[in-house]
Amino acid sequence: MIEYRTLRIALLGAGSVGAQVASLLLEHGDELAARVGARLTLTGIAVRDLDAPRSAAIPRELLTTDARKLILGADIVIELIGGLEPAREYLMLALSSGADVITGNKALLATHGDELFDLAEQVGAQLYYEAAVGGAIPIIRPLRDSLAGDRVHRILGIVNGTTNFVLDRMDTDGEEFGAALATATELGYAEADPSGDVDGYDAAQKAAILARLAFHTRVPVSAVYREGITGVTAEDVASAKKAGYVVKLLAICERVPLDEGGEGVSARVYPALVPRSHPLAAVHGANNAVFVESEAAGSLMFYGAGAGGIETASAVLGDLVSAARRHVVGGPGVAESVAAELPVLDISRVTTRYRVTLSVLDRPGVLAEIAGVFSEHGVSVEAVEQTVPPAAPPGEEGTASLFIGTHAAKESALSGVVDALSRLEAVVAVRSVLRVEGE
Amino acid sequence: MIEYRTLRIALLGAGSVGAQVASLLLEHGDELAARVGARLTLTGIAVRDLDAPRSAAIPRELLTTDARKLILGADIVIELIGGLEPAREYLMLALSSGADVITGNKALLATHGDELFDLAEQVGAQLYYEAAVGGAIPIIRPLRDSLAGDRVHRILGIVNGTTNFVLDRMDTDGEEFGAALATATELGYAEADPSGDVDGYDAAQKAAILARLAFHTRVPVSAVYREGITGVTAEDVASAKKAGYVVKLLAICERVPLDEGGEGVSARVYPALVPRSHPLAAVHGANNAVFVESEAAGSLMFYGAGAGGIETASAVLGDLVSAARRHVVGGPGVAESVAAELPVLDISRVTTRYRVTLSVLDRPGVLAEIAGVFSEHGVSVEAVEQTVPPAAPPGEEGTASLFIGTHAAKESALSGVVDALSRLEAVVAVRSVLRVEGE
Repeated sequence: MIEYRTLRIALLGAGSVGAQVASLLLEHGDELAARVGARLTLTGIAVRDLDAPRSAAIPRELLTTDARKLILGADIVIELIGGLEPAREYLMLALSSGADVITGNKALLATHGDELFDLAEQVGAQLYYEAAVGGAIPIIRPLRDSLAGDRVHRILGIVNGTTNFVLDRMDTDGEEFGAALATATELGYAEADPSGDVDGYDAAQKAAILARLAFHTRVPVSAVYREGITGVTAEDVASAKKAGYVVKLLAICERVPLDEGGEGVSARVYPALVPRSHPLAAVHGANNAVFVESEAAGSLMFYGAGAGGIETASAVLGDLVSAARRHVVGGPGVAESVAAELPVLDISRVTTRYRVTLSVLDRPGVLAEIAGVFSEHGVSVEAVEQTVPPAAPPGEEGTASLFIGTHAAKESALSGVVDALSRLEAVVAVRSVLRVEGE
Repeated sequence: MIEYRTLRIALLGAGSVGAQVASLLLEHGDELAARVGARLTLTGIAVRDLDAPRSAAIPRELLTTDARKLILGADIVIELIGGLEPAREYLMLALSSGADVITGNKALLATHGDELFDLAEQVGAQLYYEAAVGGAIPIIRPLRDSLAGDRVHRILGIVNGTTNFVLDRMDTDGEEFGAALATATELGYAEADPSGDVDGYDAAQKAAILARLAFHTRVPVSAVYREGITGVTAEDVASAKKAGYVVKLLAICERVPLDEGGEGVSARVYPALVPRSHPLAAVHGANNAVFVESEAAGSLMFYGAGAGGIETASAVLGDLVSAARRHVVGGPGVAESVAAELPVLDISRVTTRYRVTLSVLDRPGVLAEIAGVFSEHGVSVEAVEQTVPPAAPPGEEGTASLFIGTHAAKESALSGVVDALSRLEAVVAVRSVLRVEGE
């Protein structure tokens, strides 16, 4: 038998992903040793409560409540406890001690990424986080390595399985948001408190991580524009469908040329209309996909399960093999560059196409009045569609639905249009404003 | 300005990919230096004929006909000349001299991969080949690194753009093979001699490369079962469409449990029926996609442009950045393991579902007779569909079309069925046998 050197692996957290990582590590130990050139020894699993109920895969003798001691005796630390503290403190400790770190903690990276990456660079340690975005889907590594010689222009990501499941139900079965969310909760695709998902917080964290990596610049999660899907109605989805679109919650990272020269970066999350012919339109259920447009490689898409214990564990194991190989090979790691120092733009400076839905009074001259508002703000109208209104009761004015598609326009101009429209007497309500992406 | 060390890059070949690599390397020199931590200096471009017409991107003063001299003075050699010789000789020379090698040469890897990988391991050099499969799509690196801690069960790949374009036309426009191929040639998606693509040779080479990498075992291209698409008719495509399938030329790599215990590997290429709900069914035009099923990560798909000068150049640049970083970091590379030593199975030992199309005499008892043949060979029939035959001229027997879908069965059993059917008097012709994949 070959004598391998030993690498000491500390695992923080024994939840659904942690249990799978432990089990894969223990089960495939020999195979991993052969692939890595070193034996990966799980030295302990840090938990808060030794007696909490756990998966059978977790050997009880490995459990410890002394995370700090475990960390200080490790070559590689895997953090799967989630949340900001004590995860941040533990990882700072691990990096300070020279250990490489693997994390799936998107909230931590989006919030304290700068601090962690800076420390890693300073001490020559590596920070791996494939599991933080897109679950099992390899997306961090392709962006970091495969496209390293290329130039990414735009990323459109379906990075939240819960919202994709809900929107897919609404599209397929015509359900209202509430009913679709109830189904998602029942089937385990949504948490008891779904706000982190449906309000777009989870997707915004992932957008910050992807934008930083793709554009080599700092993107604080606070600078990511965010709208959730709670306002998306069955009518929005049905009308989008009729017009050849599907509604998807997208995390969008984009290089934007500036009027004053140079370029900036936009990172934003909102429900958008995606053409049905676009590869992202075929991403159903709780799956994730990241669509990348780059200068040389053209359009690429990475698709797969965006969550799940074993799927995410696969991403962690991939990172572990990379980290372990680095230990075997030796030498300093490669720091992630944020040298580009691009400004992160406010949503008002972003350009897209829009689809605006209005309730308007059904009387002569209304269309001309509305068209005038768009034109005054320099927003060019591409198509208008009006539903035949039901007959109004005698003596009352009927209302009609009006769908207006625009050509590309700045968000600031469109905001001006919406403001002005809502002040028109003939406009009963601005029912929705959805942006069009992926054209 | 930062002083970087210099890495000497030799480029072999100045075709469409080579010209793009040269141009990206020269244009983005500073950006690459910052990302890599070393200046990448293109020391020369080896060509056969100095005076052949070339892209404007190629600086004439870099051209040389002395490939050997260029190679011996390089840290990293990029081979984009294609073909077996002198490519093999040049790469052996490069590896022997300790240079890392980047190649997009699938024929070479599929044929002489063992020799090249063995030498690389022996001398501690690295062999990168992201461009050999799927053009710009990162697929080699995800299989090698991201899924290194996982276990791949099956790969279904649309890895040839020409055949996907042709089959997509047949599916979308109902064209016959010949007409669709003529369109592909006209639009530049097929070469003047399309046999390498339409007969499946190109896909078979890629299947050998993917199977080797995914299953850590040697897979000679001669062991890859291969059928092309020249026999696929408009009728096959239309009837598949009616039944909810689309015909795609797939490269399939699969772990197969053996009856005698243990497991083997199957690598095969043929036109297969893919359910329309499968992500691969949405891959249109000349695009490529590789669908990977693994134990932990579940189903993943990698999608993008499968060919094209600049797209393939992007993959080469990604490899170059990896290779250059390794030079900066130092240390030996990681050899690709073929330690699993699994047997590569003959097609007769593979199990799939089938759809058989027959022309049969339209007379009583035929269906029972045919069903008997399937049953005798232990192949279970799932569905039978018969077209209403046109009225036969007086005095003649009419013929009907019969479509028979089977449950999963061994290829050897199905061969027996087809043999027996073709000997039946009532069977006018076995018009097609297509396998069903991706269910």
